[in-house]
Amino acid sequence: MTQERWQRLTEWPLIAASVLFLLAYAWEVIADLHGPALAACETLIAVTWSVFVLDYIVNLVLAPQRGRWFWTHLFDLAIVVLPMLRPLRVLRLVTILAILQRTAGNAIRGRLLLYVACAASLLVFVASLAVLDVERPAPGAHITTFGDALWWAFETVTTVGYGDFTPITLEGRFIAVGLMIGGVSLIGLITATLASWIVERVAERDESQDAATVAHIQALEAKIEALTDALGR
Amino acid sequence: MTQERWQRLTEWPLIAASVLFLLAYAWEVIADLHGPALAACETLIAVTWSVFVLDYIVNLVLAPQRGRWFWTHLFDLAIVVLPMLRPLRVLRLVTILAILQRTAGNAIRGRLLLYVACAASLLVFVASLAVLDVERPAPGAHITTFGDALWWAFETVTTVGYGDFTPITLEGRFIAVGLMIGGVSLIGLITATLASWIVERVAERDESQDAATVAHIQALEAKIEALTDALGR
Amino acid sequence: MTQERWQRLTEWPLIAASVLFLLAYAWEVIADLHGPALAACETLIAVTWSVFVLDYIVNLVLAPQRGRWFWTHLFDLAIVVLPMLRPLRVLRLVTILAILQRTAGNAIRGRLLLYVACAASLLVFVASLAVLDVERPAPGAHITTFGDALWWAFETVTTVGYGDFTPITLEGRFIAVGLMIGGVSLIGLITATLASWIVERVAERDESQDAATVAHIQALEAKIEALTDALGR
Amino acid sequence: MTQERWQRLTEWPLIAASVLFLLAYAWEVIADLHGPALAACETLIAVTWSVFVLDYIVNLVLAPQRGRWFWTHLFDLAIVVLPMLRPLRVLRLVTILAILQRTAGNAIRGRLLLYVACAASLLVFVASLAVLDVERPAPGAHITTFGDALWWAFETVTTVGYGDFTPITLEGRFIAVGLMIGGVSLIGLITATLASWIVERVAERDESQDAATVAHIQALEAKIEALTDALGR
Repeated sequence: MTQERWQRLTEWPLIAASVLFLLAYAWEVIADLHGPALAACETLIAVTWSVFVLDYIVNLVLAPQRGRWFWTHLFDLAIVVLPMLRPLRVLRLVTILAILQRTAGNAIRGRLLLYVACAASLLVFVASLAVLDVERPAPGAHITTFGDALWWAFETVTTVGYGDFTPITLEGRFIAVGLMIGGVSLIGLITATLASWIVERVAERDESQDAATVAHIQALEAKIEALTDALGR
Repeated sequence: MTQERWQRLTEWPLIAASVLFLLAYAWEVIADLHGPALAACETLIAVTWSVFVLDYIVNLVLAPQRGRWFWTHLFDLAIVVLPMLRPLRVLRLVTILAILQRTAGNAIRGRLLLYVACAASLLVFVASLAVLDVERPAPGAHITTFGDALWWAFETVTTVGYGDFTPITLEGRFIAVGLMIGGVSLIGLITATLASWIVERVAERDESQDAATVAHIQALEAKIEALTDALGR
Repeated sequence: MTQERWQRLTEWPLIAASVLFLLAYAWEVIADLHGPALAACETLIAVTWSVFVLDYIVNLVLAPQRGRWFWTHLFDLAIVVLPMLRPLRVLRLVTILAILQRTAGNAIRGRLLLYVACAASLLVFVASLAVLDVERPAPGAHITTFGDALWWAFETVTTVGYGDFTPITLEGRFIAVGLMIGGVSLIGLITATLASWIVERVAERDESQDAATVAHIQALEAKIEALTDALGR
Repeated sequence: MTQERWQRLTEWPLIAASVLFLLAYAWEVIADLHGPALAACETLIAVTWSVFVLDYIVNLVLAPQRGRWFWTHLFDLAIVVLPMLRPLRVLRLVTILAILQRTAGNAIRGRLLLYVACAASLLVFVASLAVLDVERPAPGAHITTFGDALWWAFETVTTVGYGDFTPITLEGRFIAVGLMIGGVSLIGLITATLASWIVERVAERDESQDAATVAHIQALEAKIEALTDALGR
């Protein structure tokens, strides 16, 4: 089996695992589970997680140039291995984002705004979950409910930053920095897409001039043909 | 009667109803009306509101493919029906924005900055009204006068976000998120329009080169014609 | 004397008056003058102000179509007349900005970043003066020294908005909204200029292709000439 | 020896000196050194600093037009001489940025995002060090640990600005203003690069049309050649 075929076959199972993972994680964090429900969620998360680990290992085995693939996919290794350390478990959400990203593929400009909207929503949702997960147990934390976490994520991603809620833990601030960088990039993408659309619309009005040039060449061609015909007689 | 004709006929009445609605709502919220004045305003709002409901029903009846129109206009249904639930009444303002939007149509780039300015002013005004409406009755709210609401809306739409006034109710935060997204989009539009204008101005300086190319082709044409003439003799 | 000649003659005197006005106003506000020094500054401001009023009147008299000029220059009238009302005196600074703007003229893209830098500096300086002027006498104001005013203006124009200093008076908030809108526009201009520069640099690498097209046409021309020569012999 | 050769020879030694300087400064500031360790760091900083002074003097001596080079490099003089005054020592970090900048050279668009990422990281790191250095000794300062300084720098450079940490000293505010301006410029660069990339990708889809035009001209050429051949026979 080739690596390419494996990636094609596992596309949908991986997305399903990602969504399951996200739902379990969201339920665990939002409902602040304890006891058996928490254990059930953690088991489900562990199972979906092992799917990502398996996918990484199979990819490594199937890669045509195993050494080269390993060194060019160190980031993949990091987001698969690092979350095994307890304080870095929030990093698992980055994997989810990366896997959902795969399906977005090469969206053309027409769908770019839709893609940006989806990416922004997912980013805000995942960042809210993650920041709530790491902030709630901290003494003196401002962000203690999912509503506040979501509100904080929105004012951060749009760079408004009222400052009524701010993360106080180290992990929370790392998540915040990621969200800020994501926000600035998304705003940049929105602006760039709008700029491309306006530039194109303005250019369209000049298309008649371009067409005229092609028409001129065709007229030239017709004249040369007529000349050739005249010469042939 | 066709749906198209209905939409052309109702364009101005709908705008008039929107403006009336906005004025009545603004007066009710800013003056914090009570008693008979409040009842009068609410009646006026109900009347203008029923105009939008009527317009939705007539559109549905006149649509050539009724089923298809229904499914592609679920958003229109939502903004007509949802505000009937008391806590969602603020949503009526979205209808107003949507109807005033219709007249903006396909503005060309030249008028884009003017359109952005109007849209931004309307967005800030409507968001101020809405946030004041939902925040004032909440205990511990920061936004309790129209002046403060307007000031808050301006610092939110420009993404400055001092944080001296922030919404504390769920509805207020939904309005704030809408205003933030609107602000980011408007800033993106302004930047994109400026970029398009600068790109075009820079391109204009090279137009002589384009003209020269067309001139070359015309010179070519003249030469071929001269050749044909020479051959004809 | 024509209006055009008047405007050319008064360009430098008006700039000189603007700079004098700005210096006198800055000194009065920053040093918080009282007694004779304040009277001297106020006199100097009144004299330079009367220069702007005189310029407006002469322009109105010399205008070829007086009525039309009046209606198309209502904004000029407003910024000349409104500051006579005491609470609107800060508006005089808008005149200064408008007159200094005249000299900027049609800067080409190359100088656009320099122009944006100058405009931003002037905007921040003028807004700091104005906000300090209106906020200092207000009880409970946060902005009471020129240093704080300048710091507040910088964090507002870049849309950072920490919220450690915020205006509390109505006039102060109007100035802040102007500064926010100016800041968003300036950031948009910077981004747009950078985008135009990058788009052009990328396009330059394809210039050889364009040149080839022109070269093709010249090659064609040469061939047709050779054909004509061959036919002539 | 020519100035050009000197600059080529000293490129790597200067980068090494910059990195050493940065490491010594970072260690001194982050670890809040005292006693002999501080003296050692200060000595290392003084030595690397004298390298920059030496480089400036040699450049001045080797310059073909010494007077002209002096006047066009006043900024270089300022960042070499001003930090000798104790309160301006933080300015030395600007030199480091300027020297590391040299190596970035004329990056093409493809590497622009990488360059922006590096510049942003360096800017945030250097600003954190500088602000911690000037704020920590001030009574009532909010920014007293490197973690807080880094967090403050991130929320400032992305223009989020929660306001949970703000500089209170004059030097700290100057650093903040520099960081804000840097942040706005970097966001502008990101947006502009994305815009250029999207515009180009959209244009690529029309390349077949361009190619057709060149193909038309080649077809024309072929026809004229055939005509010439026919005439020659």
